[in-house]
Amino acid sequence: MDLNIGDEFSITREVTDELIREFAELSGDHNPIHLDDNFAKNTRFGQRIAHGMLSGAFISAVLGNEFRDLRIVYLSQTMRFTTPTFIGDTITTTARVKAIREDKGIVTLETECRKQTGEVTLTGESAIMILR
Amino acid sequence: MDLNIGDEFSITREVTDELIREFAELSGDHNPIHLDDNFAKNTRFGQRIAHGMLSGAFISAVLGNEFRDLRIVYLSQTMRFTTPTFIGDTITTTARVKAIREDKGIVTLETECRKQTGEVTLTGESAIMILR
Repeated sequence: MDLNIGDEFSITREVTDELIREFAELSGDHNPIHLDDNFAKNTRFGQRIAHGMLSGAFISAVLGNEFRDLRIVYLSQTMRFTTPTFIGDTITTTARVKAIREDKGIVTLETECRKQTGEVTLTGESAIMILR
Repeated sequence: MDLNIGDEFSITREVTDELIREFAELSGDHNPIHLDDNFAKNTRFGQRIAHGMLSGAFISAVLGNEFRDLRIVYLSQTMRFTTPTFIGDTITTTARVKAIREDKGIVTLETECRKQTGEVTLTGESAIMILR
């Protein structure tokens, strides 16, 4: 695999009620803002929102699948949650190669989640090490 | 809820093969290092490892459940993956209040995942906003 600055990888997923409930079960995060319509309608969002870390899982999928044939180590991730994700939103998660340190095999990627409307819901940065 | 610097919240979870497979399905991250014994035994780890972002899901649970009766907004998260998590590890995820900005309602917490052996697998920082 020949990586270059600016290379971009992405996946698109619909955030369904079922996916949010599965994430609640798996993570153990049963916060009512994700699961309870009555609770959520009295928040500033007026409706249930997806777990922020569900978008983290999408980043995992972009990196894990794109680099599946390489030996990589996930070093770090930053995430800033900029806009909530609602049920029915379709999220495209993109990782773009920002820097390559050839000597250490360390690649940093800008990560972003974006709704069908174009709104950015998450920005952040991944660092991975590619083992030779 | 009266929060003070140094307050600590945690959950403990066992990382089973089933949990890793569920996370792969949910996230869409089917990297063989998590799922395929034959692939994994030829990596530096010698065995399958959990998705790093599964620990992110545990952080979500600590925050989501601890603050379930408050209106909170998840602002950001950093994660540094320091040691891999193997199948059968028991991970305690802790969030410790590091700073409180009363004027903005912003609370930062140090987050950490630690194995039954005491080894730290993840360090990072969360920021949340508590709405009045």
